[in-house]
Amino acid sequence: MWLILVLTGVGVGVAGAWLDVLVRWLGDLREGRCAYGFFYNQVACCSEIEPGEVCTQWQTWSEYLHIRFIFAQSLLQSFIYVALAVAFAGSAAVLVKTYAPYAFHTGIPEIKAILNGYVLDAFLSPWTLLIKALGLALAVASGLSLGKEGPLVHVSCCLAFLLSKMFKHLHRNEARKRKMLAAAAVAGVSVAFGSPLGGVLFGLEELDTFASGTDVMWRGFVTSVIAAMALQYVDPFGTSKLVLFQVTEATTVWRWFELIPWLFLAVLGGLFGSLFIKMNAAAAVYRHNSILRSWPTLEVIGFSAITAAVSYLVVFLRVQSMDLVANLFQECDPTKVDFHGLCNATAIWANVFLLVLTAITKIALTAWTFGMMIPAGIFLPTIAIGACLGRAVGLITQGLHRTFPTAWIFNSCPPDPTVRCVSPGFYAVIGAAAMLGGVTRMTISLVVILFELTGALSHVLPIMIAVMVSKWVGDYFGKEGIYTVWIAMREYPWLPPAEFHDTGETAAGVMKPAERLVVIEQDESGITLKDLKRTVDTHPFHGFPVLLGDQLLGYATRDNLIEALVPLIVEDENMGEQRKGTFVPRQSGQDASIIDLSSLLEESVLQLRPEMPLELVVGMFQRLNLRHILFSQRGRFAGMVTKTDIVRLFTAEFPYTAALAEKLW
Amino acid sequence: MWLILVLTGVGVGVAGAWLDVLVRWLGDLREGRCAYGFFYNQVACCSEIEPGEVCTQWQTWSEYLHIRFIFAQSLLQSFIYVALAVAFAGSAAVLVKTYAPYAFHTGIPEIKAILNGYVLDAFLSPWTLLIKALGLALAVASGLSLGKEGPLVHVSCCLAFLLSKMFKHLHRNEARKRKMLAAAAVAGVSVAFGSPLGGVLFGLEELDTFASGTDVMWRGFVTSVIAAMALQYVDPFGTSKLVLFQVTEATTVWRWFELIPWLFLAVLGGLFGSLFIKMNAAAAVYRHNSILRSWPTLEVIGFSAITAAVSYLVVFLRVQSMDLVANLFQECDPTKVDFHGLCNATAIWANVFLLVLTAITKIALTAWTFGMMIPAGIFLPTIAIGACLGRAVGLITQGLHRTFPTAWIFNSCPPDPTVRCVSPGFYAVIGAAAMLGGVTRMTISLVVILFELTGALSHVLPIMIAVMVSKWVGDYFGKEGIYTVWIAMREYPWLPPAEFHDTGETAAGVMKPAERLVVIEQDESGITLKDLKRTVDTHPFHGFPVLLGDQLLGYATRDNLIEALVPLIVEDENMGEQRKGTFVPRQSGQDASIIDLSSLLEESVLQLRPEMPLELVVGMFQRLNLRHILFSQRGRFAGMVTKTDIVRLFTAEFPYTAALAEKLW
Repeated sequence: MWLILVLTGVGVGVAGAWLDVLVRWLGDLREGRCAYGFFYNQVACCSEIEPGEVCTQWQTWSEYLHIRFIFAQSLLQSFIYVALAVAFAGSAAVLVKTYAPYAFHTGIPEIKAILNGYVLDAFLSPWTLLIKALGLALAVASGLSLGKEGPLVHVSCCLAFLLSKMFKHLHRNEARKRKMLAAAAVAGVSVAFGSPLGGVLFGLEELDTFASGTDVMWRGFVTSVIAAMALQYVDPFGTSKLVLFQVTEATTVWRWFELIPWLFLAVLGGLFGSLFIKMNAAAAVYRHNSILRSWPTLEVIGFSAITAAVSYLVVFLRVQSMDLVANLFQECDPTKVDFHGLCNATAIWANVFLLVLTAITKIALTAWTFGMMIPAGIFLPTIAIGACLGRAVGLITQGLHRTFPTAWIFNSCPPDPTVRCVSPGFYAVIGAAAMLGGVTRMTISLVVILFELTGALSHVLPIMIAVMVSKWVGDYFGKEGIYTVWIAMREYPWLPPAEFHDTGETAAGVMKPAERLVVIEQDESGITLKDLKRTVDTHPFHGFPVLLGDQLLGYATRDNLIEALVPLIVEDENMGEQRKGTFVPRQSGQDASIIDLSSLLEESVLQLRPEMPLELVVGMFQRLNLRHILFSQRGRFAGMVTKTDIVRLFTAEFPYTAALAEKLW
Repeated sequence: MWLILVLTGVGVGVAGAWLDVLVRWLGDLREGRCAYGFFYNQVACCSEIEPGEVCTQWQTWSEYLHIRFIFAQSLLQSFIYVALAVAFAGSAAVLVKTYAPYAFHTGIPEIKAILNGYVLDAFLSPWTLLIKALGLALAVASGLSLGKEGPLVHVSCCLAFLLSKMFKHLHRNEARKRKMLAAAAVAGVSVAFGSPLGGVLFGLEELDTFASGTDVMWRGFVTSVIAAMALQYVDPFGTSKLVLFQVTEATTVWRWFELIPWLFLAVLGGLFGSLFIKMNAAAAVYRHNSILRSWPTLEVIGFSAITAAVSYLVVFLRVQSMDLVANLFQECDPTKVDFHGLCNATAIWANVFLLVLTAITKIALTAWTFGMMIPAGIFLPTIAIGACLGRAVGLITQGLHRTFPTAWIFNSCPPDPTVRCVSPGFYAVIGAAAMLGGVTRMTISLVVILFELTGALSHVLPIMIAVMVSKWVGDYFGKEGIYTVWIAMREYPWLPPAEFHDTGETAAGVMKPAERLVVIEQDESGITLKDLKRTVDTHPFHGFPVLLGDQLLGYATRDNLIEALVPLIVEDENMGEQRKGTFVPRQSGQDASIIDLSSLLEESVLQLRPEMPLELVVGMFQRLNLRHILFSQRGRFAGMVTKTDIVRLFTAEFPYTAALAEKLW
C-alpha cells in the first residue's frame, strides 16, 4: 500500500509538471513560435535575454511569415489564434468521445461518489487516465474557460488504481481501495495547486475522507508531500518555488476600514457563486434535453470558436488564465513591466470596466464550458473571475483613497499620500477566495490553498472572513456547492456529510416493509436450489434478505448466491435443482444431502429496530458507509432501508435531482 | 448555539489577550519595575524611548533600591527572582488545590475524553474557569517550564459550558454540548497560537472532531475566526499582527543539501520526543506512588525554587520562553540588537554548547513540571526545546559552510561566502516542528500552526518532511502521543481513532455473555416493581438489558428506571411494590393495572449478531460514539459489549495503563 502511494505521488508530481510544460507550450503556440526551436515556449525561448532587452527570439506568426501590413498581420494572428484553439479543443473532444467518455468534466463528483462507496471501476481505467491527461492539456491550451485542477485529481486516482491492480489483495478489498484513492486524490490536489497542505485539507473537507479515519489523513499527508517534492524537483516553472502566485507583500498590515470593501466582495462572491451554479446546472440540463446531446464534438468546436473569438477581443481574456491571475494578485511595482496597463493610475475607470467585463464574460463562458465533452476543471476560472472582481474593487478603493486622502475613513492610512495604503493585489486574492467559496462552498481547505498559493500570511484573517461570509450568502440561495449539484443531477449514490434532523420520524417511515420486498424464504428443512435459482434469476436486485418463517436469518448478495449456485447445479444436472440447501448453520451428524449455505450470509449486515429515530439511521449510513440496514422486531423481519432511500431524503427538494440521470454519453 | 459560539469566541480572544499582558507584567516583575508606573511591563515602560537610546525608566530591583555594590546587587536580583517565582508558583498551586483540583495540568486529555463521550461536568465548572485562568498566569510568570496553550483550550471550553447553561435545551443534549465544546476548543487553540487555521486543524486532528461531522468543522472555523479577530482587536503585543514569531525571510530558497541536517533534526525530534514521553510518564507514576502525592503544594514550591535557581544561571533559560523562541526563530541581522550573543560568529561553539545545555535542562524540567498541581501546557516548552536543538544544528551547519565554503556539498550555495546560505533561524523552526511531532504525534495541524506562527511559507515542504520523519521515528518507540499516554494513565473511556485490525476474531470474543450479566427479566405478564427496584438498588451499573424470557426487548438505563420507579412506589405505599409493570408496549383494552414501562427502553441501542467481525464492532463504537452494543441471535439475547471493553482492546499492551486511575486529587 505504501509502495503504491509513493509511486502515485511521484507519478502525479511528474505528470503534473509535464502537463504544465505542455500546456504552456501549446498555449503560446497560438500566438507565435520560438526562432531557434519549435518546442520552446515563450518564457523558455526568451530566458537568456538580459532584463530590459527586447526578446527577438520569440516571433509571432506574422513575424515568422514576414507579413508587413498591419491589417493582414492582425487578421492572420487572430485567425491562427482561433483556428488553433478550435483544433485543440476539437481534438480533445474527439479523443474523449471516442476512447474514454468518462474522461469528460472535472471528475470530482464521481470521485466523491466513489469514495462514498459507489463502485465505478470504468471511471478509473487506464484509457481514461491517458485520455484525460492528454485531453486536459489540449483543452487548457485551447483557451477555453477551464482549469486543470479537478481533472488532475482524476488522473491521480486513475494512476493509483492502475498501480493497485498489480496487488491482488488490495484490488479486491473495496474499503482499502477507497482509502488508497483518497490518498491519491489528495496528491492530485497537492500537485494541481502546488499546495501540499491544501491538498490534504481538500481531501478532508470536500472528498469527505473523515469517515475513513485518521490513517487516511496521514497517508494522504505523506503522499501529498511526496508529490510536492516530485513537482519541486522537476520544477516546471524554473522558479524552485511551489508557490504559484506570490503576492508581493508590500504592505503586511491591513486596516479595519478595508473590511468594508472586502465584505462587499464576499457578498458578491456568494451571489455570483450561486448564480453561476444555477446557470451551470441550467446549461447542463438544456444540453441534455436538446439536439446538442447528439453532437458533443460539434458543440465543443463551435463553442471553442466563440470563446476564442470573444477572448481575442479582450486582452485579459486572451492571455492564459494562469498569467492573468498571477498578475492580478501582484501589486503594482514601478520597476516592473506593467501588465497590459493594469497599473496605469490614470486609467482606473477603464481598467475597472475591463475587469468587470472580463469577469462577466468569463462567468457566462465557464457556465457553459463546465459540462461539455472535454476534461474541464472549475477552480482556475473561478479564481480568475474572483480576482478580476476583487482587483476592480481594489482599484476603486485605491482611487477613492487617492482622491480623498483626508477623509475620516482613511484616518488609519499613513499620512503621506504617496505611500500605498490600499493594495489592490490583495483585493484580488480576497475576491478569488469569495468567489471560490460561493461556487464550491468549501471553507478551510480553500483558505489554506489560497494562502499557500499566494503566501499572504498576514492576511489569513480577511481571507477567512471573506470565505465565511461568501458561504453564508451563498447558502441562502441553496446549500449545495457545484460538485454536490452535479452529483444530484447525475443521481450518484452519495450521502452528504451534513447532519440530518428528523422531526420525530422513525426508521419505519422510510423503510420498505417486509411484504413489499423480494426475500428468500426457507422452512426448517431448507429451500430447494430450484426455488433459490428462480428468485435470483427473476430479480436483479443487489441482494436478498433471508428468512426462516418470519424470522430474519441474514442477507445474501445476488453475486455470492450465483457464484455458489452455478457449480452446485452443474454438479449433478439431473437432481441438482431438486436438492435442498439451508442458511441455518448445520451441525455435524445432520442430513448431509442438505447443503449448508450459511457462509453466504453477509457477516456485517446491521439489524436494527424500526422504532429507531431516523436521525440515527441516517448517521449510521453516513459514518459506516453502509449499503443497507435490515430491520427486525423481536427477531421478526420488518423491512429494509437502502442507501438510495437515504440519499433521496437529502435530495428530494432539490430542483435538478436526477436531471442528468440517464448517462450523458 | 451560534450566539454562544460568538460570545465564546470574543470571550476567549479577550481573555487570551489579557492573559498575555498579565503574564508579561508578572514575568518582568521578577527582574524590576517601571519607574513611572508599577503596572507597566518592561516593553510598555520603554515604549516611548527612541531607538538607540538606553531605557532608564525600567529599573531593576537593585537600581530601584539604590544598591551599589555589585555583589549585593546580583544577590538581591537573584533572590527576588527566585522568591517571586516561588511565590507565583506556590499561590497557583494553592489556588488549584483549594478551589478547583480539576484545573491542574493541561486539560487536553480530559477534553479529548469529553468530546469522545465521557461526561465530566465538574471539569468545566465556573470555578475551574477562574482558577485555571488565574493559576495559569501565575504559573507561566513563575518561569516554570510550561506553556499556556493547552490550559487556554480548557479555559475556552469552560467558558462555552458556562454560557451554555443559560440555554436549557442545549445544556441537556449531550451531543449538542459536545459539538459546542469542540468549537470552543478550536477557538482556544486559535487564540493560544494566534493561529485561526491551526486551531481548526488541531480540532480536527487531535480532538478528533471528525466523528461529529462537517458542521462541527464549520462552527469551529467561525468561532476560531471570531476569537482571532477579538485577539487582534485587543492587540496585546501592540504589533497589529497575529503572527507571534515572524521569521525574517532572508532566504526564501532552500537547498537540497540542507535536507541532511533537517533529517538529522527530525530523527532527533522523534527520539527526544519519545524519551520525553517516557520520562514524563515515569515521573507522574513516581509522584503518584510516593510521598509527594500528599504534598502537592510543597512539591510545586520546591520544584519552582529549583527551576528558578537553575534558570537564573543559564541566560537562555532565564528569559521568558516566548522571547527565547522568538529570538531563536529570528535570523541574525547586524542592524539589530544581538540576543545574548547568539549572533556572535566567533562564539559558535559556546552558543552550541549553551543551546544544547538549555535543551537538555528544559527536557528534564518539563518532564517533571507537566503533571504537577498547577495549570501547565506542553506546547511552548516543546517548541523551545526543539528550537534550541535546531538552532544549534543550524549554527554547526553554518559554521561548516563558512569554514569549507568550497566543499562539493555546498556547491548550490551562492559563490560569495559573505552571502548567507544557511539560515539557522529556520533550522530552529524545523527543530521545533520535529520535537512537537515527536511529543504530540500530530501531523497536519502541527505544520499549519508552525507555518502560521512563523510565516515561513516557502518552507512548508521541509516542515512537513520533518514532522513526517519525526513521527515515524517516534512511532517506532511507541505509537502514543503525550496526550494519549495521559488518557491511558488516567483510564478515561477514550477510543483512539486508529484503525483496529482483528485477526479473525468476532464480537463474541470480547462480549460479556448473557449469563454473566445482570439483566431485568420479565415474563409475559410483566415484572413486579419490587423485583425491579431490588435489581436497580443492588447493582450500580449504568443500565440493564431487558428480557422477556430469553428474548431481548431492549436496554434501560438505571437513571431512567429510578426516576420512573420512585413516584410509582411513593404513589401507593401499601401495594406499590406488589404492582406489576411491563416493557412490552401495551395495547388499549388490556389490564390497566399493569404499568407500561416500554417508554423507558432506549430507542437507539444497537442490536447486532455475535458473529460480526470485531473490526466492524470497534468501528461502530468509534464512529457512532456508543456506550454499549447488545448482541442477540435470532432474537435471543447473547451478550453485551461496552465501551470499556473496547478501550481495553487498545490499551491492553500499554505499560502505564491505569497507573493513575485512582484520581490524583
